Amino acid sequence: METISENRCFGGVQGVYRHPSKATGCDMTFGLFLPAEAAQHPVPLLWYLSGLTCTHENAMTKAGLQAHAAAHGVAVVFPDTSPRGEGVADDPAYDLGQGAGFYVNATQAPWAAHYRMWEYITHDLPRVLFAYFALEEDRQAITGHSMGGHGALTMAMRLPGRFASVSAFAPIAHPMASDWGRKQLGAYLGPDEATWAAHDATLLMRNGGFEGEVLIDQGTSDQFLDLLRPDALAQAMTATRQPGSFRMQKGYDHSYFFVSTFAGAHVSFHAEALAR
Amino acid sequence: METISENRCFGGVQGVYRHPSKATGCDMTFGLFLPAEAAQHPVPLLWYLSGLTCTHENAMTKAGLQAHAAAHGVAVVFPDTSPRGEGVADDPAYDLGQGAGFYVNATQAPWAAHYRMWEYITHDLPRVLFAYFALEEDRQAITGHSMGGHGALTMAMRLPGRFASVSAFAPIAHPMASDWGRKQLGAYLGPDEATWAAHDATLLMRNGGFEGEVLIDQGTSDQFLDLLRPDALAQAMTATRQPGSFRMQKGYDHSYFFVSTFAGAHVSFHAEALAR
Repeated sequence: METISENRCFGGVQGVYRHPSKATGCDMTFGLFLPAEAAQHPVPLLWYLSGLTCTHENAMTKAGLQAHAAAHGVAVVFPDTSPRGEGVADDPAYDLGQGAGFYVNATQAPWAAHYRMWEYITHDLPRVLFAYFALEEDRQAITGHSMGGHGALTMAMRLPGRFASVSAFAPIAHPMASDWGRKQLGAYLGPDEATWAAHDATLLMRNGGFEGEVLIDQGTSDQFLDLLRPDALAQAMTATRQPGSFRMQKGYDHSYFFVSTFAGAHVSFHAEALAR
Repeated sequence: METISENRCFGGVQGVYRHPSKATGCDMTFGLFLPAEAAQHPVPLLWYLSGLTCTHENAMTKAGLQAHAAAHGVAVVFPDTSPRGEGVADDPAYDLGQGAGFYVNATQAPWAAHYRMWEYITHDLPRVLFAYFALEEDRQAITGHSMGGHGALTMAMRLPGRFASVSAFAPIAHPMASDWGRKQLGAYLGPDEATWAAHDATLLMRNGGFEGEVLIDQGTSDQFLDLLRPDALAQAMTATRQPGSFRMQKGYDHSYFFVSTFAGAHVSFHAEALAR
C-alpha cells in the first residue's frame, strides 16, 4: 500500500492511499479520515460511497464530514467509484464506465474484467483497511450520495450484521425503474433482469429491509428526482414498517451544498448506532 | 449582474454571480453565502480572500465556512483572486498573473490595464454587494488564506473603521522579505520599494496595526513557512501590543484541511466582533 498524502485535519489525519485490488484488477485509490482517537485505539468506521463522476476526492474535500467525524471519534473512508487506468474499459457517457461503477460485479464484456466494485467495497478494501489502520471491524456504518446511496443501501441490506446503521443522501432508490439503473445494470449485468434485483434498494426494502435504523435525506428541489425515485423507496419503507426516517428537505438540490448541510445529522445518526 | 448558480445550503443560499468591474476592466465572478436571516433583514458580511491559484470557487466548496456562518447569521463573500479572460495579461508561473492578483493596483505594463484587485475588493465589489443583497455595510469583517490573508490584513489596517475584525489563515505576512512578495510587488508596482510598503502586513502592523482584535492561525507543518514569514508578523504584533492572538497549530499544513479545521473558530471570532 502506498501513501499518496496525509494532511492534519480536525485533530486527526486525512490520508489518501493507493493499493492493488484483486477484485478490480487495477490499483485503487481511497481517502481515509482518522480522528485523533485512532492514535490511541481502534475507532468505528463510517463508509461514504460517492456518486456518478466522483473519485475518492470529491466528498473528501467538499462534504465536510471530517468535522463531525472528529467530534464523534469516528473514521470515514472515501472509496473511488470505479476501476481506473489504462486497459480499463470506459464509455464516453458520464454515467457508464469510469466514475460510474454502480457498486456491482459486472458479468458482461467489456466490463467484467475490472468492474467488480461490489467485491472491491465489500471484500478487498475492508481487508486493506482493517490490516493497516486502527479501525474496529465490528463497528461499521455506511452512507452515500446518489449512486453511492444506492451502493450503501444495497450493501447494508444484503450484508446483515455488517453495518450498524445505513443512511443516504438523495440515493438512486429504484434503479430498475430508472434510466439511472436500467442502462447500467443492463450493460454490466446483461439483459436478465432477475440479476438486477439484488441491486435495487426499493426491491430489497420490500423483501426484508434493514435490521437497524435507516436515514434518508432528499432535497425537494433536486434536479434528478425523476431518476432517483425517492417515492418508491419511501413507499417501501413505510409499507414494510422499516424503522427510520425519510426526510424531504425543502429547497435543497443534488449538490455537495445539500450533502454538507446534512452531513452532521448523518454522522450523529451513525455515531449513535455505533455506540450501542 | 448575472446569476450563475444558487444552491440551498445550511438553510441559506450559496450563490455565484458575475458582474462587470470598472476597476479590473473585465467581468468578475464571486460567490456569496447568504444565511436564512438575509431573507428577513440585512445581515453582517464576512469577506474571505483566497490564495494563489484560487478562483471564487475553492474556498466556497472546500473551506466549510457556510456551516458556521449559518449558525451565526453572517454572510460570506468569496471574491476571485485576479482579473481573468481574453485580453487579460498572464504569466506561466502559478504565482504571477491570473490567480495571483496579490490585492494591489498594478502600475506596470502589462499588468496595469486589469490588475487592480485592491480597487476591486475595496470599491467595486462592495458597491455591487450592498446594492443587490441584504447586507449591512456598517457590519463587515475580513479574513483570508495565504495570499488572501495578506490581502485581508493589509485592507483591514489601511481602511480603519471599515472592518470590525480581521483574521487570517497562514497569511503571507511579510511579502517585502519573501519570494512570495518581492516578485509580485516588483512586477505589479515596479522597482521602487517605497510603493510596496503599503502592501506588507508586518510593516503596517509596526506602523499602527489594527484598531480591533486580530486572529492568526498558522500550521507548524506548513510547507511554505519560509515564504509566509509568520515570525515577522508575530514579532510585530507583540512588539506593538496589538490586541489579538497568533496561534501556531501543531501538525497542520497549508491546505484546506487546515483552513476548514479552524474555520469555525474564525467565524465565531468575527461574529463576536460584529455583534458589538
